[in-house]
Amino acid sequence: MPDRVTLTFLLGGARSGKSTHAEQLVTGFPAPWIYVATAQAFDGEMRGRISLHQSRRDKGWSTIEAPLDLAGALETMPTGTPVLVDCLTLWLSNQMLAENDVEAECARLAAVLAKPRGPWFVVSNEVGLGIVPDNPLARRFRDAAGRLNQQVAAVADSVLFVVAGLPMRVK
Amino acid sequence: MPDRVTLTFLLGGARSGKSTHAEQLVTGFPAPWIYVATAQAFDGEMRGRISLHQSRRDKGWSTIEAPLDLAGALETMPTGTPVLVDCLTLWLSNQMLAENDVEAECARLAAVLAKPRGPWFVVSNEVGLGIVPDNPLARRFRDAAGRLNQQVAAVADSVLFVVAGLPMRVK
Amino acid sequence: MPDRVTLTFLLGGARSGKSTHAEQLVTGFPAPWIYVATAQAFDGEMRGRISLHQSRRDKGWSTIEAPLDLAGALETMPTGTPVLVDCLTLWLSNQMLAENDVEAECARLAAVLAKPRGPWFVVSNEVGLGIVPDNPLARRFRDAAGRLNQQVAAVADSVLFVVAGLPMRVK
Repeated sequence: MPDRVTLTFLLGGARSGKSTHAEQLVTGFPAPWIYVATAQAFDGEMRGRISLHQSRRDKGWSTIEAPLDLAGALETMPTGTPVLVDCLTLWLSNQMLAENDVEAECARLAAVLAKPRGPWFVVSNEVGLGIVPDNPLARRFRDAAGRLNQQVAAVADSVLFVVAGLPMRVK
Repeated sequence: MPDRVTLTFLLGGARSGKSTHAEQLVTGFPAPWIYVATAQAFDGEMRGRISLHQSRRDKGWSTIEAPLDLAGALETMPTGTPVLVDCLTLWLSNQMLAENDVEAECARLAAVLAKPRGPWFVVSNEVGLGIVPDNPLARRFRDAAGRLNQQVAAVADSVLFVVAGLPMRVK
Repeated sequence: MPDRVTLTFLLGGARSGKSTHAEQLVTGFPAPWIYVATAQAFDGEMRGRISLHQSRRDKGWSTIEAPLDLAGALETMPTGTPVLVDCLTLWLSNQMLAENDVEAECARLAAVLAKPRGPWFVVSNEVGLGIVPDNPLARRFRDAAGRLNQQVAAVADSVLFVVAGLPMRVK
């Protein structure tokens, strides 16, 4: 189990089990736990995932939605409380859709993540291991996601690459 | 070398050398060996791979085709015989094309794989580490493949992630 | 740090930090260092990367462009000098665009890489971990890249899989 004030970064593919593994790590700490959802309400599946967490609120979870100002939301987290951020790639997608300054937002987020106030667990997708996408927007997103993942990995205490539900320790 | 009654799960990308590595592990055991092909006959390249295995039948291999009823085929495997299943993603693709109940079929397969009768080696593709596909069917396939890989990894004794022909031990 | 006459192969996704990590390994040796660029001049981003290396030439780097005859360029490398080849997937793409005999060129390259004359670091992309591409050319490229990566990994002394800027040792 990680120390009480650490950043653990979980990176994996679609349906790799990274969120479930992150949740297991979070709930290894005593409740209460905070789930920070970056999904926009219009994503049906993510809405389902948020609802699931909200329905379990009485079992120790509280849910915060932070589709854009994730850095701001993390700055208000209570000291010592386990936090699960799910996930950075959705947040990045929201930033790009909002036409925000992605580079500045990523730098701001990385600065906040570098100073966790409790055991923080951050989930992100690795999206750069396929063929170069035809679509220019997809290429921009892939490049931005890769850079963001590097920034977060650099400040994380532990980095796990999750494959088929199983973590490989990278850092 | 794994014990005689174990499930080894080999996961990797296209042309990662996962099948070749699996074959090396299988032939580390004394012959005879059984090759369970999930490919449909209409796939030219897979037909070639099946033919290769069939042509080597006299050298210790026998080949079984199980494009859909893989669970049933595995239940008939003789005790103690090394088996290579190549591969789960093709089998899943066949299930989806046949419009079978994918969730039920995956659960049934995982239940059989949880009780190997010899040194069993199962190969599958990791397909979730690229950009989200535009195509809805490809997204459904990607999600189903990720879930299946998690189910099989959960019951496997060993899980190897194969990169450029080299295995990384995940479990 | 690797010995003075070794081949280190760095494999990773787009924006995985593989080139930066390779550069750090190269500059762990005393200057001068040689940067072998496989990019064609018409790729804007790679032109930028080449320019960056060229502008640092006075700081220890010299740059050689080898978009096609990479094997020939490597055969002229001075003994004992650290070399960074960036990257094999661009080189492969150039070979396919030039309609050269890809199989023969890959075999020739692998033969040269099997006999490094100094600490050589070779960067390549893993592109086979997404969904099968719709595009037949992309599928051919993906297959050829996977085979090339296996060939190079087989002759390398060390193989690193780079995720979010962090190396995982595969060999």
